[in-house]
Amino acid sequence: MKKLINEPTDYVDEMLDGMVAAHPGLRRLDGTEVVVRADGPTADEVAVVSGGGSGHEPTHAGYVGDGMLAGAAAGAVFTSPTADQLAEMVQAADGGRGVLCVVKNYEGDVMNFDTGAEMAELDGVDVRQVVVDDDVAVEDSLYTSGRRGVCGTILVHKCAGAKAAEGAELDEVARVAEKVVDNVGTMGVALTSCVTPEKGEPTFELAEDEIELGIGIHGEPGVERTGTMTADEVADTLLDAVLDDLGIDSGEEVVTIVNGMGGTPLSELYILQRRVAERLDAEGVDVHDAWVGDYMTSLDMMGCSVTVCRVDDELTELLDAPAETPALTVRE
Amino acid sequence: MKKLINEPTDYVDEMLDGMVAAHPGLRRLDGTEVVVRADGPTADEVAVVSGGGSGHEPTHAGYVGDGMLAGAAAGAVFTSPTADQLAEMVQAADGGRGVLCVVKNYEGDVMNFDTGAEMAELDGVDVRQVVVDDDVAVEDSLYTSGRRGVCGTILVHKCAGAKAAEGAELDEVARVAEKVVDNVGTMGVALTSCVTPEKGEPTFELAEDEIELGIGIHGEPGVERTGTMTADEVADTLLDAVLDDLGIDSGEEVVTIVNGMGGTPLSELYILQRRVAERLDAEGVDVHDAWVGDYMTSLDMMGCSVTVCRVDDELTELLDAPAETPALTVRE
Repeated sequence: MKKLINEPTDYVDEMLDGMVAAHPGLRRLDGTEVVVRADGPTADEVAVVSGGGSGHEPTHAGYVGDGMLAGAAAGAVFTSPTADQLAEMVQAADGGRGVLCVVKNYEGDVMNFDTGAEMAELDGVDVRQVVVDDDVAVEDSLYTSGRRGVCGTILVHKCAGAKAAEGAELDEVARVAEKVVDNVGTMGVALTSCVTPEKGEPTFELAEDEIELGIGIHGEPGVERTGTMTADEVADTLLDAVLDDLGIDSGEEVVTIVNGMGGTPLSELYILQRRVAERLDAEGVDVHDAWVGDYMTSLDMMGCSVTVCRVDDELTELLDAPAETPALTVRE
Repeated sequence: MKKLINEPTDYVDEMLDGMVAAHPGLRRLDGTEVVVRADGPTADEVAVVSGGGSGHEPTHAGYVGDGMLAGAAAGAVFTSPTADQLAEMVQAADGGRGVLCVVKNYEGDVMNFDTGAEMAELDGVDVRQVVVDDDVAVEDSLYTSGRRGVCGTILVHKCAGAKAAEGAELDEVARVAEKVVDNVGTMGVALTSCVTPEKGEPTFELAEDEIELGIGIHGEPGVERTGTMTADEVADTLLDAVLDDLGIDSGEEVVTIVNGMGGTPLSELYILQRRVAERLDAEGVDVHDAWVGDYMTSLDMMGCSVTVCRVDDELTELLDAPAETPALTVRE
């Protein structure tokens, strides 16, 4: 397995240095794997922060910037950041109006964010947390009690970040984040395994004629291994599972994400998007916006996920609000 | 080789339908593989258009929108659009102030754009062409007399599109495009082959311990097959070749692109970006902006390219001008 890397142990460090080198709006906290806004913290805004294991780029540091995150902490590949790092991020991001931590539901992340938040609170920072568990595929998993947090998290970042940019109080920012969590669902599929830099070989094996439905973003087991399917069959399977879970009815309004896992060409994501749009149109569901691209990846995995979020006027306004981050820019 | 597709023969058609479904700013000309701005043509602006074979997404239709392209024509995978389609695009994009065609230097593209432009001229459209040949790796190639046109083309789209958005005349828009062509260089590397939808197997073979330097975006032969290299060695090799070709000196200002070929994780591109930034800094070259991501791909190929463009105040102003396209958004 070939990779464009140097020493596997330098992977996260060098990747973050590259991000900061490319994006002058980002700043790395010395001696940490925490990235914050270069011009932060802002006394005017609640700080929305996130973090988790590396290997999901552009998640999370790619969403640091005006209108989205105030900070992001990167753990080792597929490993939670430490509580110390998280505490340091929360303290650095706080401009005095408090901090909302957006946590993907994995045991390590939840535990370390809890401890990190407590440490920051002892230093006088007002901290709230929201846990995202949008993966409809499985209850409990390799690293998770309950559902896993996956690509729907990006919509939480966008809405909470936009609310914070309006100058809202911490409770209001947290309310909006919870509202997204309550209305978003995601399911993924893997065509191939991912290969971690340290191990250098596939995390799991899939035969040439096999795919795995409901895969996790760390390669955790899904719901079913099945033969290869057409793009339309894959889109239908993922979309049906998510719509069914959310109970989306005709006449409702949604935002969708067709997300690539890292090794899938953009052209294939658009082929899936075509089917997702066609299906929602046929079912009388109104699509406010459709995102297509690599938003939350699993290293070099070939595969995709489909996210649907039920939206109302409040959420569409927050999703459409301006943002400027390395991975997402929205013009006014 | 697994892909998220339906019938291989429907690949381009379905991909374009998905793009238009996701991006309401785009419109597909009925019965063609041409995408134009939904609100075009604009009587105020020269139209900058491009096109070429599919398989390089988001190139080209992903750059259609305010401040960049007015239209893009998609051929079959790795195959030039027909002259008829190109003529139709030029006519549809023209708002009365003329059309600049940005052509990547491949024999099929050059021939069909020539014929398409002639057909449109017979119908009274003022047409100019600029041919991009930024690949410094090889002179003449599988489908090319002279150098190949690769990722530097995106900078031509951006600068020419911004100049057109200012309301400049066709000659001025063409002058700016030529200025970018004269100052941009690119070189790529492949870690793996790409797999076309029709063939379903690798276009060429690379051993597990082998990479190919100077690869073309259709898998055309490069300059050297060599053993695997570290990210820093790859970055140095590509950057040295481009800097040497352009004759960039200390004190000059550049814009860089670290471009993914489709199957390379974003994290690896940032690891390369770190080295590119470090090297340019050490050589006293001022980096105005650094783009990192999948701008011009080769289906699912693992690999990357490095682009450097010498810029002055005119070009930096055009690169920084607002744009809103599916693949590139620049805020004011």
